[in-house]
Order: sequence, then structure tokens, then C-alpha cells
Amino acid sequence: MPDGQRAVTITEVATRAGVSISTASKALNGRGQLRDETRERVFAAANELGYQPNALARSLVQRRSFTVGLLSTESADRFNIPLHMGIENELGAGRVSVFLCDGRADPLRERFYLDSLLSRRVDGIVVTGVRTDARPPLSNVPLPVPVVYAYSCSADPSDLSVLPDDEHGGRLAAEHLLSAGWRTFAHITGPMDFAAVRDRLAGFRATLADAGLELPDRRVYSGPWRESFGRDAAADLLDRHPEVDAVFCGSDQVARGVLDILRERGRRVPEDVGVVGFDNWGVLTEDSRPPLTSVDMNLQELGALAARRLLSMIEGHRESGLIRHPCRLEVRASGGAPAPRGPGGIGPVG
Amino acid sequence: MPDGQRAVTITEVATRAGVSISTASKALNGRGQLRDETRERVFAAANELGYQPNALARSLVQRRSFTVGLLSTESADRFNIPLHMGIENELGAGRVSVFLCDGRADPLRERFYLDSLLSRRVDGIVVTGVRTDARPPLSNVPLPVPVVYAYSCSADPSDLSVLPDDEHGGRLAAEHLLSAGWRTFAHITGPMDFAAVRDRLAGFRATLADAGLELPDRRVYSGPWRESFGRDAAADLLDRHPEVDAVFCGSDQVARGVLDILRERGRRVPEDVGVVGFDNWGVLTEDSRPPLTSVDMNLQELGALAARRLLSMIEGHRESGLIRHPCRLEVRASGGAPAPRGPGGIGPVG
Repeated sequence: MPDGQRAVTITEVATRAGVSISTASKALNGRGQLRDETRERVFAAANELGYQPNALARSLVQRRSFTVGLLSTESADRFNIPLHMGIENELGAGRVSVFLCDGRADPLRERFYLDSLLSRRVDGIVVTGVRTDARPPLSNVPLPVPVVYAYSCSADPSDLSVLPDDEHGGRLAAEHLLSAGWRTFAHITGPMDFAAVRDRLAGFRATLADAGLELPDRRVYSGPWRESFGRDAAADLLDRHPEVDAVFCGSDQVARGVLDILRERGRRVPEDVGVVGFDNWGVLTEDSRPPLTSVDMNLQELGALAARRLLSMIEGHRESGLIRHPCRLEVRASGGAPAPRGPGGIGPVG
Repeated sequence: MPDGQRAVTITEVATRAGVSISTASKALNGRGQLRDETRERVFAAANELGYQPNALARSLVQRRSFTVGLLSTESADRFNIPLHMGIENELGAGRVSVFLCDGRADPLRERFYLDSLLSRRVDGIVVTGVRTDARPPLSNVPLPVPVVYAYSCSADPSDLSVLPDDEHGGRLAAEHLLSAGWRTFAHITGPMDFAAVRDRLAGFRATLADAGLELPDRRVYSGPWRESFGRDAAADLLDRHPEVDAVFCGSDQVARGVLDILRERGRRVPEDVGVVGFDNWGVLTEDSRPPLTSVDMNLQELGALAARRLLSMIEGHRESGLIRHPCRLEVRASGGAPAPRGPGGIGPVG
């Protein structure tokens, strides 16, 4: 870089202030006994020259680098956005800087980044993912720094993993649809080899069971996380089970397909059928017809929680196991009105 | 952190290998004259102990930290995903680590991060955004490190900014629709205070003009970047200008609304009308009916290009001005068939 733009050194600050390097260092680091006048002269010189304290040098002295590695395994996924925002915001507030490493679900790439982060003497590592299914731990040998898995689950129970509470999300969807008066349920969701799919279904079913209702397997559709699958499944559902009056969808993409087919078949949402999605992905939920009520995994909060736990571990606390962070329901129009209407007691809206 | 997990020091490696610290340092850093046997003993000890070379200490010696700051101004935007992937991948391949800083369009936050990055002695900074409109430069005073703006445009022409070529995107859309035989065009797009909106329109119009066709203002709709606006504008367009046979949309969100209204009004896509979107956002384009042909801004490539330019500047090259990175067209079904059909010469498909 051009000479005029290189970083200002403490030697230059000392020369400008007319003091020794040792005195300049004491002033800038708030150590030692100095006259106020001397300290102020050093600060003035530092400001004039645009001196920035050297965090690298400070790190070597303090044996902490105030950096954390953020190792994402699925970078191209939109779930990373709120997750990373939550992590970065929480760490940044504590003046901890975040190294972004994009592992792309490639074990070799992950290993490369792990070595790089350790060589940079990070104080800790957050591993982020987009699935709740267990994955191999970052390393088979103990690492010199603590690690937290966020929306990612280490297969080693001595690691700490923070996951969305998918079962809770399923319960929220069921409670909402029940409170709107619906009684005959279906579920259209993603592949059953996702733990999240099984957990959401379990929570949904359990809450229906509490209300004396059941969701038989014949009204559960599992397929790819796609809008087109939502359309296909909804069409089949209406053919085979026209009595269904509420559909819980495992994702907003699936729900968009379901809404389209219901409208095209003349079933009004939410007057005739209630629909709830999952993910609360604004681009899909806000402008759908009608706007889609959806379960939100609170990923920004989940990321912040993972970051706080990592800071606690960096301070010396040992933590392990699994934390399930609650979901919340974003209520829009598609689920139906929360209170039963009319004098006839509980019944569907409209 | 527990004692057993702290970082291994070079002193411990030296002790284990039975050599002096100076010898261990020479071996691990590839300096000095050492017997092969000695060097190998040091490496063996380093491996046994899990020694990681200290990148912090190396940085202080080399006066380069091999780190770069990635300062995003709109973190919650999905455009950041491919952009950050491209930047991080390009830098990581050169063993440069990336500090992620989430400025959130807040000048105070941005200032805080800038100070933090300079204090960490980054070698350079990439500022990312999601608009092509000029923004104030990161600092009003010269910075000690080079800065590149990626999908973000510094108002200072002595800075280097890398932007998508929106005008080129507009041209690609027009060329595709013209080649499919459409002749009466409309444009439904975002707010006119976005430079990108004006540039896309200009490119689209220029290409139509080259073909002897025009796009009058009465067939250009500008409104919010929303699916619902696409629906409203398309409904108005069909009422006022039923002769229109091709619609270029300024975003895929808008295009989704347009496709829905065309279908509901009995206009088949692409048999009766051709539609092209902008952004190539998979969740909107892949499962729409029909799948949506869309302009892709090549943001991952754009990010990689910005990263390469920053590395070049870190090596001492001065660069300034504006680079426009070309778009590409992702052809699916909605635009129509590329070749005219039938013996009657050029005409719409079907």
C-alpha cells in the first residue's frame, strides 16, 4: 500500500509528542504513573496522526484474541441470515470480532478452516448449520478452545448444541388451528429423514391428542421441500379427504403450493380451510393470498443465545448437552380467527 | 478454559524435541541451517503435542495480518448470501481470513466496526450493500488500508466500486423476449428512486429501440418490490392494454404476482404472453407456474471479483472508479421459445 496510508506506529506517536516510546505506551494503555499533561500530549499526537491501537499486539499480551470463528456448514442457505445476525450482534457488542468461514458441507474445507482458526488463536468457535440432525463433531480430539453448535447438532453429547424446538413449533401450530375451531387435520411436510420433520409432526399430533383429536397417517404427506410438492399433495388431499378443514405445512414453500391449490379448487382460506406454515419466511408469507400464518424458529435469538453460551465457556464455564430454543407463531390471516363465532358453540369460522 | 485444552507453546515443543527454543522456531518457520534429523524431531514433537503456529505473532513480524474486514450494510438481505460466498471463497483460497461486520445501514455502527477493523490491523476492507445508488464513503479521511465497495457504490470516485450491470440485464431480457417473437412490451418494476430500476429500464428500452420497437411510459409500472404490487399492476395492465404480449419484471417477486394474475385471467404463459423476471431467486423462480426465466446478477462472481481487486490493492496497486459486472439470463419456460415457429415468419409462440 502507498507509504502515506500505512498504519501509524507508537514510535511516531512518541516522537510527535516528544516522549519516550515507553511513556507513549503507558499513556495509550492507561498504565503507569504519568503527569496529566504528558498523557494529554500523547493522546493529542495519537489523534493527529490517526493512531490505532494494535489489537494484534494486545492479544499476544492478554492471551486472548477477542476473536471467534463462525464456521457455517451450509452458506447458501437463507436460514444463515438471521442466525449469523444474532451471533455477530451478540459478540460484536462485547467487542469480539467474528471470522466468517464457509465450510459448505465439505469435511475437507471444514478441516482447513478449523486449522486456520486455531492458528489465528480464536477464543472459541460457533458451528452453524441448517439441520437439527446430529453431525460428526468438529474434531475427534479435544480442541484448545470451546465450541458451540448453533442450529447444528454435534453427535458428541459432551458438546453443547443449540437447536430450535421443532416440537414446540408443531404444538403452536396445533393450538392456533384448534382455537380457530378446525377439527379435521392434515399435515403436508418435508422428508421424514429430517429430525425436524418428525419433531414438528410429533408436537402437532400430541397437542391434537390432548384435545381428543387425531391425525391419522393417511392424512400426512411427506415429500421434498418444494412448492410443487405442496400443490401435488394438496390436490391429492382434496380428492381423497375433502372433509379436511385445516392443513399444517412443514414449510412456507410447501404452504404456498397448498394455498394455490385450495384457491383454485374453490376452497376459501381462512373461511373454509385454515392453513399454517413453518419458517415465517417473509418473501413467501407476507404477500400470499391470504397472508400466511407461520411458525418462526426465532433464529436470530437462537444465534444470540449460542453466542452468549460461547462467551460463558470462554470465561471458563463448562457446558454440554442440548438446548432447545422455543419457537413463536407469527399470526397473519390464513389460520382462521382465534375465537369461535356464532351461538352454536365451537365451529369453523364462516 | 480447562488447563488440558490450552494452546501448546513453542517452548513445550522445544522441550519435547530436546532442542532450544530458537532451534524449534527455526524448524517450524523454515528458517536457518538445521540438520534434517533435528527438523524432523521438532515436527514430530509439534504433531504429538498438537502445536498450531501462532498467526498473531507471525502477523506482527510480517506487518500483514492476512485478514480482511467484510462490512455489510444490509445484513438481513438475501443478496448478501451469494455476495459473501464469493468474497469469502476467493479470500479463503489465498489464506486470508474474513472478519464479518454487520453494519445494518447504521452510520454509528459502521464507524464502530471500522475502528475495530483498523485496530485489528486488517489488510483491507470490502463494503457490501444491496443497492447500486451512491453512498457516502466509509471515511472522510484517507484510511490506512484499501477499501473496495461490492454491490455498493462509493460517492467518492477515487474509491473502487464493483456493481452488477443492470443495464446489461435489461438488454438480456429484451433480447430474449424479442427472439421469442413478442412485439408489444410492458415493464412492471420497483421504485424509480433506485438507480437499478432506471438502468434496467434503459437497457431494456435501448434494445427494443434497436429492433425498431418502443416501450411507452404508459406501459411502465413502478411500485414497491412486492408480489402484491405485481398482481395489482398486471390487473391494471390487462384492463388497459390487453394487446401486450410480453412483460419484463424488475424483480422475481413482482413477476410472481404477474404470473398469478395472467393465469387467473386466462392468459397462458408462455403460449399467449412471455414473462421475464430479475434476480433469479430460486425459491420464486423454480416452482412458479411456469418456471420463471430470470436475469441473474452473478453476485457470487461479483463478490469474487471485488475480493481479487482488493488483494491486488493490498499488494500495492491503486485502483479506483466503477466496474460493472455483466449479468446472465437463466432461461426457464416463461419467456417463450427462442425461435419463431411456423411458415408465417416471426410471431408469438403458439
